[in-house]
Amino acid sequence: MSEWFDATGAIDTVKIGDRGFQYGDGLFETIAIRGGQPRLWDYHMDRLSGGCKRLAIRMPARDELSQGLGNALRHSSAVDQGLAKLVLTAGDGRRGYGRAYADVPFVCYGVFEAALPPRDSYREGVVTAVCGTRLAVNPTTAGLKTLGRLEQVLARSELAATEAYEGLTMDVDGNIICGTMSNLFVVHRSELSTPSLARCGVEGVMRRHVMVTLAEQGIRAEIRTLTLAEMNESDEIFICNSQFGVLPVRRCGEHCWPVGEITRSVMAALAANGIAECRL
Amino acid sequence: MSEWFDATGAIDTVKIGDRGFQYGDGLFETIAIRGGQPRLWDYHMDRLSGGCKRLAIRMPARDELSQGLGNALRHSSAVDQGLAKLVLTAGDGRRGYGRAYADVPFVCYGVFEAALPPRDSYREGVVTAVCGTRLAVNPTTAGLKTLGRLEQVLARSELAATEAYEGLTMDVDGNIICGTMSNLFVVHRSELSTPSLARCGVEGVMRRHVMVTLAEQGIRAEIRTLTLAEMNESDEIFICNSQFGVLPVRRCGEHCWPVGEITRSVMAALAANGIAECRL
Repeated sequence: MSEWFDATGAIDTVKIGDRGFQYGDGLFETIAIRGGQPRLWDYHMDRLSGGCKRLAIRMPARDELSQGLGNALRHSSAVDQGLAKLVLTAGDGRRGYGRAYADVPFVCYGVFEAALPPRDSYREGVVTAVCGTRLAVNPTTAGLKTLGRLEQVLARSELAATEAYEGLTMDVDGNIICGTMSNLFVVHRSELSTPSLARCGVEGVMRRHVMVTLAEQGIRAEIRTLTLAEMNESDEIFICNSQFGVLPVRRCGEHCWPVGEITRSVMAALAANGIAECRL
Repeated sequence: MSEWFDATGAIDTVKIGDRGFQYGDGLFETIAIRGGQPRLWDYHMDRLSGGCKRLAIRMPARDELSQGLGNALRHSSAVDQGLAKLVLTAGDGRRGYGRAYADVPFVCYGVFEAALPPRDSYREGVVTAVCGTRLAVNPTTAGLKTLGRLEQVLARSELAATEAYEGLTMDVDGNIICGTMSNLFVVHRSELSTPSLARCGVEGVMRRHVMVTLAEQGIRAEIRTLTLAEMNESDEIFICNSQFGVLPVRRCGEHCWPVGEITRSVMAALAANGIAECRL
């Protein structure tokens, strides 16, 4: 039984000449499926669209992608609470970095069971670790969820023998950027901030949803450079992603934090704004 | 007729769950085939082996890879003067960055016609351009030929409407690193040097062969940081890769260079050391 689909049905392979395989020439979205429907779909499409513009990949119409995902969900068993991965590549091409002969993008949809953390993680927080693997600094692809994710693979592999739920990654200059699969917010003297992603990292859709939700309450999260020392000195930390919503961080290495008032209020605001997991 | 092969025969697809496709979790080699045989095979295997160690991907035995390539060449029409691409990935895996469930590497071999520049390029030099696309700085993957080559794709696409044969790329700090598909040497007051690849770029096998060939003649090429200004002020420039060997650069943007004595002597040395294209 295939977990993967294209516009016409189940698939389990991709053309070996596909530029996604050959060069990482593509983008993806990891979308939460709740009650059979994609969550934060518009945000996912906004990010994908922005990525396609920056990489000069032709983006199919949003309706076409929505229909494709709908088909995949109808044919999959994991539809109620699930995780969908939408992969968009520059398509099947001739050998060579240039894209001249590849202008028909390839789209596929993977549907999986949701893999959510235990419920008590939301109340008590999760353990994280700072990864030794650093993120490359490059404004060209900063913020994008490209198919080249080797840094995340290596960072994630560092956690294999640890109790950490998530690994936090720094750029080569020692600034904290994001988690291997999440974005990060810190609270310092009641002020919220989140690392800038102008030089590296992925602009998560849940990060955007957190900021929009806060803004609707008149609360601003500052986007800024955040050193490891500043993170360690903060009063509260939480991470977010499209699947789990928001999770408090209770420990990172030797540094411990309480699940603070502001983190709780952010979670309550999100719970009231479509992210049911955040309801304590 | 497939251009791609695995150990058992022709293939035209790869598993969609392959980590090479999903995450760029793999490496490749682009190998010149001359007289039906892979050229600089040991150097390619050395680089691949070093990459596998750094990425913790299990490398198949060299003999196994040699046999696999041999099979591919026997079944291909482009065997005498050709280009083989050996792709090695972390294999088919479960979703998620961690590699716990993917420990059987996938290997495939593409065989293509050689695409060599016109003969007069070797005598008169080629035109290059400095690309706007910058290379990310990251010691973790610096030097490796990973499957994530989006920077090269974007840099190469800048050349589409130009007469440039190759694009030279800088890191985010403005140092010249290498070409989109080649390495670079400059001559300054009769001294040879080539940019350091400790922070980004690909350690080309022909770069190594050039340095080894020079060393056998008692000539040392210095590995160093090279700014664009320093490159522009140099007396001679040449580029090298596994396919074309060595090519003089006669122009980059507004800067012109002669095909100098030292470049000619390097080409002569290479021609005498197995790289027939360099014979003028």
